[in-house]
Amino acid sequence: MFYHDSKLQYKVRVEKPNPAFANMLQQAIGGIEGEIRVCLQYLFQAWGSRGPKKYRDMLMETGTEEISHIEMLATAVALNLEGAPVSLQEEMAKDKVIGAVMGGMNPRHVLSSGLAAMAVDSNGVPFNGSWVVGSGNLAADMYANVMAESTGRLLATRLWEATDDPGMKDMLSFLIARDTMHQNQWLAVLEDLGGLKGVHPIPNSFPQAKENHDYNYAFVSTKVNDEDGSIEEMRNARWSSGKSMDGKGEFSFNLGLPQGDLPELAPPDPRGHAQVEQMNGQAGIMNKIKHKF
Amino acid sequence: MFYHDSKLQYKVRVEKPNPAFANMLQQAIGGIEGEIRVCLQYLFQAWGSRGPKKYRDMLMETGTEEISHIEMLATAVALNLEGAPVSLQEEMAKDKVIGAVMGGMNPRHVLSSGLAAMAVDSNGVPFNGSWVVGSGNLAADMYANVMAESTGRLLATRLWEATDDPGMKDMLSFLIARDTMHQNQWLAVLEDLGGLKGVHPIPNSFPQAKENHDYNYAFVSTKVNDEDGSIEEMRNARWSSGKSMDGKGEFSFNLGLPQGDLPELAPPDPRGHAQVEQMNGQAGIMNKIKHKF
Amino acid sequence: MFYHDSKLQYKVRVEKPNPAFANMLQQAIGGIEGEIRVCLQYLFQAWGSRGPKKYRDMLMETGTEEISHIEMLATAVALNLEGAPVSLQEEMAKDKVIGAVMGGMNPRHVLSSGLAAMAVDSNGVPFNGSWVVGSGNLAADMYANVMAESTGRLLATRLWEATDDPGMKDMLSFLIARDTMHQNQWLAVLEDLGGLKGVHPIPNSFPQAKENHDYNYAFVSTKVNDEDGSIEEMRNARWSSGKSMDGKGEFSFNLGLPQGDLPELAPPDPRGHAQVEQMNGQAGIMNKIKHKF
Amino acid sequence: MFYHDSKLQYKVRVEKPNPAFANMLQQAIGGIEGEIRVCLQYLFQAWGSRGPKKYRDMLMETGTEEISHIEMLATAVALNLEGAPVSLQEEMAKDKVIGAVMGGMNPRHVLSSGLAAMAVDSNGVPFNGSWVVGSGNLAADMYANVMAESTGRLLATRLWEATDDPGMKDMLSFLIARDTMHQNQWLAVLEDLGGLKGVHPIPNSFPQAKENHDYNYAFVSTKVNDEDGSIEEMRNARWSSGKSMDGKGEFSFNLGLPQGDLPELAPPDPRGHAQVEQMNGQAGIMNKIKHKF
Amino acid sequence: MFYHDSKLQYKVRVEKPNPAFANMLQQAIGGIEGEIRVCLQYLFQAWGSRGPKKYRDMLMETGTEEISHIEMLATAVALNLEGAPVSLQEEMAKDKVIGAVMGGMNPRHVLSSGLAAMAVDSNGVPFNGSWVVGSGNLAADMYANVMAESTGRLLATRLWEATDDPGMKDMLSFLIARDTMHQNQWLAVLEDLGGLKGVHPIPNSFPQAKENHDYNYAFVSTKVNDEDGSIEEMRNARWSSGKSMDGKGEFSFNLGLPQGDLPELAPPDPRGHAQVEQMNGQAGIMNKIKHKF
Amino acid sequence: MFYHDSKLQYKVRVEKPNPAFANMLQQAIGGIEGEIRVCLQYLFQAWGSRGPKKYRDMLMETGTEEISHIEMLATAVALNLEGAPVSLQEEMAKDKVIGAVMGGMNPRHVLSSGLAAMAVDSNGVPFNGSWVVGSGNLAADMYANVMAESTGRLLATRLWEATDDPGMKDMLSFLIARDTMHQNQWLAVLEDLGGLKGVHPIPNSFPQAKENHDYNYAFVSTKVNDEDGSIEEMRNARWSSGKSMDGKGEFSFNLGLPQGDLPELAPPDPRGHAQVEQMNGQAGIMNKIKHKF
Repeated sequence: MFYHDSKLQYKVRVEKPNPAFANMLQQAIGGIEGEIRVCLQYLFQAWGSRGPKKYRDMLMETGTEEISHIEMLATAVALNLEGAPVSLQEEMAKDKVIGAVMGGMNPRHVLSSGLAAMAVDSNGVPFNGSWVVGSGNLAADMYANVMAESTGRLLATRLWEATDDPGMKDMLSFLIARDTMHQNQWLAVLEDLGGLKGVHPIPNSFPQAKENHDYNYAFVSTKVNDEDGSIEEMRNARWSSGKSMDGKGEFSFNLGLPQGDLPELAPPDPRGHAQVEQMNGQAGIMNKIKHKF
Repeated sequence: MFYHDSKLQYKVRVEKPNPAFANMLQQAIGGIEGEIRVCLQYLFQAWGSRGPKKYRDMLMETGTEEISHIEMLATAVALNLEGAPVSLQEEMAKDKVIGAVMGGMNPRHVLSSGLAAMAVDSNGVPFNGSWVVGSGNLAADMYANVMAESTGRLLATRLWEATDDPGMKDMLSFLIARDTMHQNQWLAVLEDLGGLKGVHPIPNSFPQAKENHDYNYAFVSTKVNDEDGSIEEMRNARWSSGKSMDGKGEFSFNLGLPQGDLPELAPPDPRGHAQVEQMNGQAGIMNKIKHKF
Repeated sequence: MFYHDSKLQYKVRVEKPNPAFANMLQQAIGGIEGEIRVCLQYLFQAWGSRGPKKYRDMLMETGTEEISHIEMLATAVALNLEGAPVSLQEEMAKDKVIGAVMGGMNPRHVLSSGLAAMAVDSNGVPFNGSWVVGSGNLAADMYANVMAESTGRLLATRLWEATDDPGMKDMLSFLIARDTMHQNQWLAVLEDLGGLKGVHPIPNSFPQAKENHDYNYAFVSTKVNDEDGSIEEMRNARWSSGKSMDGKGEFSFNLGLPQGDLPELAPPDPRGHAQVEQMNGQAGIMNKIKHKF
Repeated sequence: MFYHDSKLQYKVRVEKPNPAFANMLQQAIGGIEGEIRVCLQYLFQAWGSRGPKKYRDMLMETGTEEISHIEMLATAVALNLEGAPVSLQEEMAKDKVIGAVMGGMNPRHVLSSGLAAMAVDSNGVPFNGSWVVGSGNLAADMYANVMAESTGRLLATRLWEATDDPGMKDMLSFLIARDTMHQNQWLAVLEDLGGLKGVHPIPNSFPQAKENHDYNYAFVSTKVNDEDGSIEEMRNARWSSGKSMDGKGEFSFNLGLPQGDLPELAPPDPRGHAQVEQMNGQAGIMNKIKHKF
Repeated sequence: MFYHDSKLQYKVRVEKPNPAFANMLQQAIGGIEGEIRVCLQYLFQAWGSRGPKKYRDMLMETGTEEISHIEMLATAVALNLEGAPVSLQEEMAKDKVIGAVMGGMNPRHVLSSGLAAMAVDSNGVPFNGSWVVGSGNLAADMYANVMAESTGRLLATRLWEATDDPGMKDMLSFLIARDTMHQNQWLAVLEDLGGLKGVHPIPNSFPQAKENHDYNYAFVSTKVNDEDGSIEEMRNARWSSGKSMDGKGEFSFNLGLPQGDLPELAPPDPRGHAQVEQMNGQAGIMNKIKHKF
Repeated sequence: MFYHDSKLQYKVRVEKPNPAFANMLQQAIGGIEGEIRVCLQYLFQAWGSRGPKKYRDMLMETGTEEISHIEMLATAVALNLEGAPVSLQEEMAKDKVIGAVMGGMNPRHVLSSGLAAMAVDSNGVPFNGSWVVGSGNLAADMYANVMAESTGRLLATRLWEATDDPGMKDMLSFLIARDTMHQNQWLAVLEDLGGLKGVHPIPNSFPQAKENHDYNYAFVSTKVNDEDGSIEEMRNARWSSGKSMDGKGEFSFNLGLPQGDLPELAPPDPRGHAQVEQMNGQAGIMNKIKHKF
């Protein structure tokens, strides 16, 4: 069950509202690198958590924290939109700063939300539930989380570069710090689970005896016409020789060649109405279909 | 530039076509864990690669390999659809195996593609370009790639469990092996880039001096009413005490409390046509708007 | 800021897991009538709230409650998936109950989430942020909320009919009750704002003098060939005569006829490369373009 | 069956084309508040209408009218795009008005549609069929319709503020008037169906005896740390005391506390390939799975 | 402006309702091959039509007809859903025919629409406005229309095969006939516009002198390892030799080789926060950036 | 199986980077008219190809070539983004050229991709797999391909007009040339398959005897109030009289009139919880439901 405090987790102030920056901040709310994604991701992972209880507990702690981050950013968007130009009257467009601002604004901040944040990214593309990854495998999920916090911190540092508003820089320095922590936190779970050698290959519950042993530690090169000589570097790279990272194999280098045949499909089922020409000259077409329902 | 060989990278055979399994295989083609995603992800990362050339080269090698995997899976889907029921005539539905198959099929395999693979997942949801992550930061991208290969290998092992067709199991044992390799490969790049301590926090080019130092290594607990006593476990967990994973801080434990204020937004801009009641009693409404364009 | 309690808002128990019902429950999580939508909708409305503070406070209260509902439903999905069939082996499909279950399952519950809830609806279509309505106008938002709770309660009653599991029926009777309350709650705000006559037409801050007075209370009929005589009923219906609902006009009946002209567009801009035939015979094409940048 | 007249329902003229305003108008065509949505929504409600015929008839009347509104807006977009800048040549960007216009334009109006309207919103996000609500319950649908016309009229008034073109203002004054009527029209149906007390809770066909009676008229507060004292106001608000809006209950105030337990899920199914660590120490894992298929 | 008649364009009757077929019919309503798409496509093409008026007129005629087709199909869906199973009670699933039907149903037909059609395809994926093609070039649009009517007629014939209900077969024989006509109709426009030689290459208003003359009629082969000898057949195929279809060139055969260089991007902009390792050893990084804002 | 060469198919150079043009180029990468679409479309058509092998071979050749075009365009985007403004600092916005550029940029090029191409269109809308058409009918697919190359070439000519960078114009002249060839190539297949008269109506394998003969070559007019007299022109147009394009019928002109009845649906199923008023006065409601499961 969930509760709220009317105060914010961290202070949000905007000295000089900037509607174009409001639009940029949307990326950190409704974008694939944003806070709605990590919030739902950690919560769904917690709610579906099977196995040792401490991981569910931890995911709940941080999933809940992320709601507070959405709240901070939504507040920042609303504050940046105050006083935004809401019309296209020419006297406004003639002011060059405003002109630039208007070009960088999201028109839906005026038209749809009444100068408030929305569940969209900085292109106005709506948040998409497909981004919420919870696989049922804890290690895979931890990598999804490290990845989310890495692209999330990267986004936050770019927003930090894009603004010179001291309030916004301060808020971002808090969010950047939290992302530092969260990267470390999910990595700590991976250590807890055994580190590289214990964790990989993910899932570690599938018997490796059943995977193809000619290809499980081979770097496959697909390059032709090696005029710039890069294949030699590939052949000697860390990923083509030496012990594998999971300690369970030896890297090798493999010049890619097809091991399969020409694919051959049966002729079309007549009831699927391909063109006649696709069926011509193929007597007994249905006989060739291997499995008959 | 790209070339093709008419043969497949690895053999694909289906002993007993199963249209419901064809549908499941779509997850590995057009799903978020699937091959179109990794293919485009590695290629876009390569095409936008800035910095040492060897990383671009490697990404090109493997991005190209993944096209071959889409091809293998698309062929497997088409083979599994041969002889599929294409009508709802009752005599068919009466057969219980067929009934189950029909329930598990994607009707668009009959209606839209003529018994062939499509660029959709196992729910028929189309592939979405937002899943293609290329951030411009090599380490963030490598985590995106480890994550993709982890959920990808997990998916492949689940498909392996779902089928008893020897041909399909053989094909999947190859794909599972490649995912083993690719997990190791991206991890090798992370080692190349300095390992946990060199790489984190991502991006490592943002000066940590500028992040908030009260919160960058603190586990924030958001729990109230600790009846099951789990907070104690949280307080002592790997992620709440000891050296941080990146070696740059000391984990601490923080009982979450708001540091911010009650958020306060200006009244609505009259031209945004909120209800009158939202503006009542607010004389000089526009004067309160801090920044005037 | 937000907090959580590890316990659920209301008990969730499943006596007889049913993976097809798990799939149906997804509609109440990630569907347009579902809980992620209302949760984000009320929270975003609160975060962007401008005007009297009590409305923000109330929206925060209920938005936070809805997170607890997502949690309950996600737990219900996971419990309904326990023991679900994870393969297509024939001995399973031959059992007719299992066959039906498999047909009704979401294959991604096996393949993608490892038997846990996802942020998708009962067709596997991901939650979409465009459904989160917050307009900046409190009355419009209240209608969006009444509508969400109406389709939400409708969905919950249909789920109640679809299951005979006593645990699920009990959980749904709680959620149905909450929807009853929430319908009443948003209606109470509309009363607070002045009721039908005070609130409409929304937005009530736009001067009605500026809307077209020939058409603002006229029912426009678009019907031709009235063989079934329904136009007469339309002419006398509540919406075609008598005082308007907002008390600001008199309903009338209008047989629709065009008041506008044939639309006439300028010929194509040559640099837009329409076919030559679209431009033929149109000397001085650019001269006709009215406004020149 | 449907027919058309080549003339427009109402006149559409543009005195000074403005491509940035053309983009804004797209919100009223392909946006969630727009005309494609209401058009399809009313028509689908009509086509699926079960019960008294007069409601189907009315929905058909107005659904058909909305096609005419899409037509008017599409014409307005095309007229606003005439003479739009179609290149990025510097001499153009140097003109500040054009610069602002270019920033506010949708590049796809140049690249994809050849200066014509598209089925997208003002961010270029395509119209989405999920917005078309028809629930099979007439009262729920009416609220969906009131909501659509409320956000629709709000959008139209904001567009009215954004332009100073007399032709556009005149067209919008017509559309605003129609939205006034349509709000009233759907409210008239709700009155026809019994008003607040007859209609609610929606659906009124579900026996209220079967909903949870501890929670169906209780305002649940989720607030902690009430430093600003707002809980007191909540406790006395219209939604926490007095007769409920539907006249079927008495509002009460409830300090939210969990009534449920700690959720407990079974360990992972081994064939779902969680990490081994999620299964460790859990002897007889499969025995714990409650329901066995 | 638009009007309606309460009767259907063609009779719709269902002798034996089948909810699985109702689901299949959704493909013809909300699918990419379906009627909403062609309806909006022809109407948007009409509304944006620039050039000779007769093409706008014709597009209006047929765009309007397509609304009537959506209506017919929506009616057919509702009729096929009558009596559909609305619960998962076991006694139902035990009947094998019902079991199959339930597997093939869209659960949202029960949960969301109350046994009525929705604006989605047969996977429940919502209609998407991006499918509505109107390019501003009449010939390109005519090909989009021929394509839509070709996949549309194909879909209709597959639906015809999937049902044995005489009412549904009759309705489909009408829709198949209309698709025959519409294929011919758009082809007639292409003839009107000059046929293959007059129309191509589309757009015919771009001066061919400005396209690259080494590649505009050359078939480029990307094949390596020609073990099956297919390149020889390619070299002699209709598309590799002889007059081009547009009569403006001579087909040739070209063994694909790169004409470009190794791509070389500048090092990352430091403010974009790539990893330090991507910037190491690159003194004067900003100097290398060619264009400085 | 697939291979790559590190060099580009054709040279890509940018003399003067322009981030707004980078955004426009995205339409040719991830837009519906773009290269990811044709690439996947031709490859999926090849992989699902049933019938004469030469068509599969040809589709593979060209599908592979299209990957090279994505690569070229992605490189062009990255080069156009070099030196792009990455912040909103005022001194930048004050420069009017930069202001215009910032308005035309995609902020995600700064925030998400680190100045590299993404799998999105010029509105930032992600590539969508639904655009990948492969129907199983070769002729329908060829029209989908001609259509794709027609809108693709149209887009390329518009991009050519939008830039004055000689490098970009050169690259586009190559891509325009390839589109010329590909239009011709797919038309050559249609000739190979029998031309208009052999190919249509698509699918040609459905016996025309089974389509409705009153409507298969009739132009249906839906116009009322013919004040501008255009019906006469319609009546005599190429599509209303004379031999049909497929040579299998005679065009005729038909003034549209309904041939169907008023649609009549059964009352709502009570378990679907329509409002009581939808069921009132309908004794024995369930008896009316025609088919009982």
